[in-house]
Amino acid sequence: MQIQELGEFGVIDLLTRTVVHQRSGPNHGTDFSFKLTVDNGDDTAAWQTGKATELFTTDTVVEGIHFTRETTPWHDLGWKCIASNVSDIAAMGGLPMYALITLGLPPETEVGDLEQLYQGMMEISNKHGVAIVGGDMVRSPIVFITVAITGIHADNPMLRSTARPGDQVAVTGYLGGSGGGLRLMLGSGPDSIMSREISEEAAEYLRSSHRRPQPAVAEGRILSSSGVATAMDVSDGLADDLSKLCRSSGLSARIFAEQVPVHPLLKQAFPDEYLDLALGGGEDYLLLFTAPPEVMARVIPQLPEGAAVVGEILEGEAGKVSVVESDGSERPGSGAGWDHFR
Amino acid sequence: MQIQELGEFGVIDLLTRTVVHQRSGPNHGTDFSFKLTVDNGDDTAAWQTGKATELFTTDTVVEGIHFTRETTPWHDLGWKCIASNVSDIAAMGGLPMYALITLGLPPETEVGDLEQLYQGMMEISNKHGVAIVGGDMVRSPIVFITVAITGIHADNPMLRSTARPGDQVAVTGYLGGSGGGLRLMLGSGPDSIMSREISEEAAEYLRSSHRRPQPAVAEGRILSSSGVATAMDVSDGLADDLSKLCRSSGLSARIFAEQVPVHPLLKQAFPDEYLDLALGGGEDYLLLFTAPPEVMARVIPQLPEGAAVVGEILEGEAGKVSVVESDGSERPGSGAGWDHFR
Repeated sequence: MQIQELGEFGVIDLLTRTVVHQRSGPNHGTDFSFKLTVDNGDDTAAWQTGKATELFTTDTVVEGIHFTRETTPWHDLGWKCIASNVSDIAAMGGLPMYALITLGLPPETEVGDLEQLYQGMMEISNKHGVAIVGGDMVRSPIVFITVAITGIHADNPMLRSTARPGDQVAVTGYLGGSGGGLRLMLGSGPDSIMSREISEEAAEYLRSSHRRPQPAVAEGRILSSSGVATAMDVSDGLADDLSKLCRSSGLSARIFAEQVPVHPLLKQAFPDEYLDLALGGGEDYLLLFTAPPEVMARVIPQLPEGAAVVGEILEGEAGKVSVVESDGSERPGSGAGWDHFR
Repeated sequence: MQIQELGEFGVIDLLTRTVVHQRSGPNHGTDFSFKLTVDNGDDTAAWQTGKATELFTTDTVVEGIHFTRETTPWHDLGWKCIASNVSDIAAMGGLPMYALITLGLPPETEVGDLEQLYQGMMEISNKHGVAIVGGDMVRSPIVFITVAITGIHADNPMLRSTARPGDQVAVTGYLGGSGGGLRLMLGSGPDSIMSREISEEAAEYLRSSHRRPQPAVAEGRILSSSGVATAMDVSDGLADDLSKLCRSSGLSARIFAEQVPVHPLLKQAFPDEYLDLALGGGEDYLLLFTAPPEVMARVIPQLPEGAAVVGEILEGEAGKVSVVESDGSERPGSGAGWDHFR
């Protein structure tokens, strides 16, 4: 069987079982009292260090799959590579710390492009207190960039697996902007009608949402220190990411379409598609979190830009997410997002 | 200018300057007293945690560049990916701890091959107390595998930058076996004379040197706890790796060709080329270390398989390494190894 037949989740399940079940004996982390507290399957792994909890995650982009040089200039690519990793740390409620950069590069890569890439990386790294401390550089027929990052949390990180029936589901910002920006740029050739229909203000909002996502580090810290136990970042689309969170927690969820926060400029640019973009567009890098209504009511006002309650956690088939439309009808919500191998 | 014109060292220098000099303000590691003690440019980065020193490194392989499916079966590929990372931890004198695996895979990859890959990873991970705690999986037209790993050292890790004039240079095992194995397999088509000339015993030794390198974790621990301050692993060939160590220390070195340890089966298989393979063949993953003669005399007998003194550290142009032949003539030793972009 090929991995495209098994699908991304199937492959992940298979490999996770392998690395967890075939692990033998105590590892050196445990020997040194760096005990693993979060294993495979969350936004980051985590272990205790005595002083704090350390976080560890990695994220990769491949040319032609995750970006093209047309949709993402090198400078923005550098920003985004770090942003997606910092966002995973933010989802745990932690602060990002040390990063390693792996570059796969064709020999004909321009040095000037590489300098641009690193300018973008340095901007966001300095903004979030990340130090790039090493990496690896290899020849490759296509460009790929892997960032591995550590983070730190003073206490217990937020997890995907701790949602409870009756929790409300909320998000920390507008959804679908990045997906709208990508669609705009992919559709904006000289023959495209779309590029003439969209206002420059909307186009600018959408492009910058796609190219300069802002990881929600401050929001994650506030949530985690205010009693929210359950969170993840929205990187593959709200519906699919909520489905992953539900799968980890062994529960279902329902999203109320009318409550999904969409920026007016996204609505203006995509009047018929904004909801699909908000539910299924990826790379928004804001936080999705769940909490009982009383916690939610207390926590949301503490966030600098608030948060929108978009749904609720239910008993039911693990990972099942449905969308309730404005007319009260209900349809399956997940499965429209990104499967790497299908 | 393209990166192939600037060369691997030029690109690394440029990017290292960028990430170190444009780093602004205290990073969150320092805020939390996880102070960085080893920055870019060594086998791993390192920071203090209060209890110990934590190590952090990454290493990548790309299909068609670092391996082919002919020379490296999936099972061995899994072993090697972890081995090269564990070897970097060993070079610091540390113990490997937690690892993240990034897989770039074509959709038509066979699930059975992936299972083989992970069997190889699990074998070496369990052997060395490594726990695989997460990763990322992405679609890619070519296979690439990036491993990021953390390690731990109870005290101060060994560095590349601490060699002193008068130090002896030693290695912990036979050199060139992996390079010989690769040359054997690349030359072993049905038309090759070579495959008929080499004994099965030699072929088996060479293949397994290439496919199943053994990172020198125990050796690194002994060296580091016995007063050796300077080490790195030999992954790109003795001459080039010693040149890197000398560059870090601002010194030169001389290798005595006759003292370079070569396994009898490598000599048997490659009677004319064994020295080139020992000096320039990569992926041996043993340790190269330097120390004053009195330390060397005390430490070598403590190593289970000993070590061979192969040269000496000298004042002189930083990074210059020469090879002294058996007739006393001296020739440049470095520059014959691997440049990723040339």
